[in-house]
Amino acid sequence: MDSQNRNIGADLLKGTSQVFFLENALTGIFFWVAIAYASYVSGVWATTIGALIGVVVATLTARLLDCDEKSVASGLFGFNGVLVGAALPTFIAVTPQLWAYVVIGAATSTVVTAAFSATLTAKWGIPGSTGPFVLTGWLMVAGAHSFGGLQVIGDAPKLATDYVQGLAPLPQPLELVQIFFRNIGQVFLLGSEISGALILVGIFIASVPAGIAAAAGSLVALAVAIGMGADPAVVSQGLYGFSPVLTALAVGVIFLQTSPKVAAYALLATVTTVFVQGALDVIVAPAGIPSFTAPYVLTMYLFIAPKKLLAPHPHRPVADHMIGREHGEAPPSTRAM
Amino acid sequence: MDSQNRNIGADLLKGTSQVFFLENALTGIFFWVAIAYASYVSGVWATTIGALIGVVVATLTARLLDCDEKSVASGLFGFNGVLVGAALPTFIAVTPQLWAYVVIGAATSTVVTAAFSATLTAKWGIPGSTGPFVLTGWLMVAGAHSFGGLQVIGDAPKLATDYVQGLAPLPQPLELVQIFFRNIGQVFLLGSEISGALILVGIFIASVPAGIAAAAGSLVALAVAIGMGADPAVVSQGLYGFSPVLTALAVGVIFLQTSPKVAAYALLATVTTVFVQGALDVIVAPAGIPSFTAPYVLTMYLFIAPKKLLAPHPHRPVADHMIGREHGEAPPSTRAM
Amino acid sequence: MDSQNRNIGADLLKGTSQVFFLENALTGIFFWVAIAYASYVSGVWATTIGALIGVVVATLTARLLDCDEKSVASGLFGFNGVLVGAALPTFIAVTPQLWAYVVIGAATSTVVTAAFSATLTAKWGIPGSTGPFVLTGWLMVAGAHSFGGLQVIGDAPKLATDYVQGLAPLPQPLELVQIFFRNIGQVFLLGSEISGALILVGIFIASVPAGIAAAAGSLVALAVAIGMGADPAVVSQGLYGFSPVLTALAVGVIFLQTSPKVAAYALLATVTTVFVQGALDVIVAPAGIPSFTAPYVLTMYLFIAPKKLLAPHPHRPVADHMIGREHGEAPPSTRAM
Repeated sequence: MDSQNRNIGADLLKGTSQVFFLENALTGIFFWVAIAYASYVSGVWATTIGALIGVVVATLTARLLDCDEKSVASGLFGFNGVLVGAALPTFIAVTPQLWAYVVIGAATSTVVTAAFSATLTAKWGIPGSTGPFVLTGWLMVAGAHSFGGLQVIGDAPKLATDYVQGLAPLPQPLELVQIFFRNIGQVFLLGSEISGALILVGIFIASVPAGIAAAAGSLVALAVAIGMGADPAVVSQGLYGFSPVLTALAVGVIFLQTSPKVAAYALLATVTTVFVQGALDVIVAPAGIPSFTAPYVLTMYLFIAPKKLLAPHPHRPVADHMIGREHGEAPPSTRAM
Repeated sequence: MDSQNRNIGADLLKGTSQVFFLENALTGIFFWVAIAYASYVSGVWATTIGALIGVVVATLTARLLDCDEKSVASGLFGFNGVLVGAALPTFIAVTPQLWAYVVIGAATSTVVTAAFSATLTAKWGIPGSTGPFVLTGWLMVAGAHSFGGLQVIGDAPKLATDYVQGLAPLPQPLELVQIFFRNIGQVFLLGSEISGALILVGIFIASVPAGIAAAAGSLVALAVAIGMGADPAVVSQGLYGFSPVLTALAVGVIFLQTSPKVAAYALLATVTTVFVQGALDVIVAPAGIPSFTAPYVLTMYLFIAPKKLLAPHPHRPVADHMIGREHGEAPPSTRAM
Repeated sequence: MDSQNRNIGADLLKGTSQVFFLENALTGIFFWVAIAYASYVSGVWATTIGALIGVVVATLTARLLDCDEKSVASGLFGFNGVLVGAALPTFIAVTPQLWAYVVIGAATSTVVTAAFSATLTAKWGIPGSTGPFVLTGWLMVAGAHSFGGLQVIGDAPKLATDYVQGLAPLPQPLELVQIFFRNIGQVFLLGSEISGALILVGIFIASVPAGIAAAAGSLVALAVAIGMGADPAVVSQGLYGFSPVLTALAVGVIFLQTSPKVAAYALLATVTTVFVQGALDVIVAPAGIPSFTAPYVLTMYLFIAPKKLLAPHPHRPVADHMIGREHGEAPPSTRAM
């Protein structure tokens, strides 16, 4: 096929930029530099290698399964794979089984992406976004607790509930700036503010409105998390900010056309995402898994789902119920649907 | 707009009566008296104030978002808000952050109501009912565990699993009568039997069949909970009864046309709801959240979903699978869908 | 009705064979012998009696509710009932309340089957399969923790997380053969290798490709579970194998037409099911419930959902959003859906 001759490298870079909803190879390069820089600083290269395996395996799987050609070329089958590939070595120690896990996880993320596309997207008009990464990542990290060949590491699934609530001093100005960038870097699970800055530059290169929305989302998350008294140690790592950054971008710029009303709607969605972050940290803790971008995914799904002309069901009989109206006494004009 | 000139007060009263699927301002007045009476007895007014903020914010949000005019006027965008507003101060101590939480929660409940309407209702023919309240309430109460500005209070999420199982004496006749009414009051999270009686009167004012179904649901729940050996302390508070009351009403009268067969179907649904109450109390306990009306919501969704002519998929190949029939060897007549 | 005169016995046997997607009365007889043999060996007959009650009540409920005649006659409303009936006495001690629970649970499984058919199947093209059993079974076993009349027994919900991870010797050849058959027997919650062998014979009688797929699924599960270092005690009971057996059969033979590409796809699905087994054991543990066939159900849903021509949503505005394009400035050609 002709399509097989395309520049696979460009696909992979675009697939990486799609984590922030962008289709831009140069932006993808900035993102990879950000990922590699975080590995350089921490000395842990497994995350960068995992991310690379993830995007390659996910994209190749999409080609093997004959997924929609244009979508594959746009990187829409790659961005969940790059996140799965970065996340698994972040939360699971390196063993031979880990690499098998990364390969299977990335391939499965493509199937899950296709499943979300055929249901949530095709039937309900809701973009799947990073939902496939969240589902695949949850299953793989939870599963790691069951297998002797895989060790869930450290206090990696950093949970807000570890926080002994109390009076905490406000972060200093310099730390506020660091958190602002870490909020962005954590979308790729990177705790480095330099990586966050590189990613923000990459976003601005592709789209100025996207860059503004990402920055605004980071600021709103910072203000709400501090105002509500979230654990300062968790806030400092940027863990209260990455989902709101994605929500601000997705609801305010990508999936709705920006307008004053949309901006207000995106603000409500962004604030809600901070609360949902607090909630999901608590809800998934018993399973020993991190919440990943689930706060963004759930909030975005709820805020993008509402459609014109689709009203709540009135409190009257539903149409065509299996056991309803078996004697045909109801005229069509009373049908509720 | 003309519609903006409508009597907003009537909208709010109707929105409150819609908690029991009714559109009747007088019924709404009875419900507000019941809510206020419980605050008067307990000395805790935050729940009444929260409920008022909830219904106002949720309804105004629906107007600002240009939600379906007729639905807003019927109160269909208010009843989830009133429940969110009553529930949050029941489970979270009063702080400035709580009131911000109530406002954001009520506004979000309107978005969630619109999301359920556009998906579950428009595509699957299932009414959203109090599902948006359950989802929003769960996220907000779970999130409260993460924020220093919010304290989840007391033993409020009273869980059946706290019960040391054993032989328990049957409640005395007077207590049975009290439980009968508390089962109804707890729909609004009210433990007062007087409030329950006021609510039941309000229901009968709007619809005699609805009143009978609510009363029958309360009796069935009482019998099943005692017969299965549920924790008497929990039964006594009416916590095993409020979801079955809603199920009996929704399945037996509101969403299906009453008939002998529908009555039997509603009886099965009501009994099942008691079991699901026991199940969800256990399932959501690790997240530190109450089950709210989730037992009703889940059971009602399952019992209202079945439609005529929609049979199980036979155990043959599905149609149009991404990788299926790539060589075109299957004639259309074998298509399973 | 004529249909009421059909041989109800044949319906019940077919309903039992449908657990493995087969419609064959003789296969059903082999399955019943397998179930009864396990009761004979263990001396526990409640599971066989429960299975019988389950299939009878579920099938009769389907007839009373006027469910699709052809589906009922094919046993498609019976197989979830037989599993509910076998599962409840496996995890809950025998009391009078247990039998009420089995009857209500089996009747409810029919309603849940109809609900899944009208939504997941009719709207998304995904077969419900044993999903209704998993949902009903989870609710009933979780609920049993709440009721004094029901006791969840022993260490029955055997969880992989109980396993202290470490070096474990490989099973001996004879034990490998036993596990191979137990992996199949556990689909009916039977730990006996003889029962597993009887079931496999029953499958081969109805379909040779189905028998080969089931055997291959068992082998793949065995290799992956041991290779990943799963708890040998759990592997030995066949608890890592029964869901992969169903996945191999469903994805490789039943719901897709077998081909080399489908075989590779089914292999990925089968390996993923082993990982999901490890994950769900951990995720459902806090609720005190077993994972049942949920690993198969979730994986199969995800692998069967993808449809031709249904691509991911591009990262552009969605169509017809409630608050989108309120000024009508977007031409139809930019509509994303």
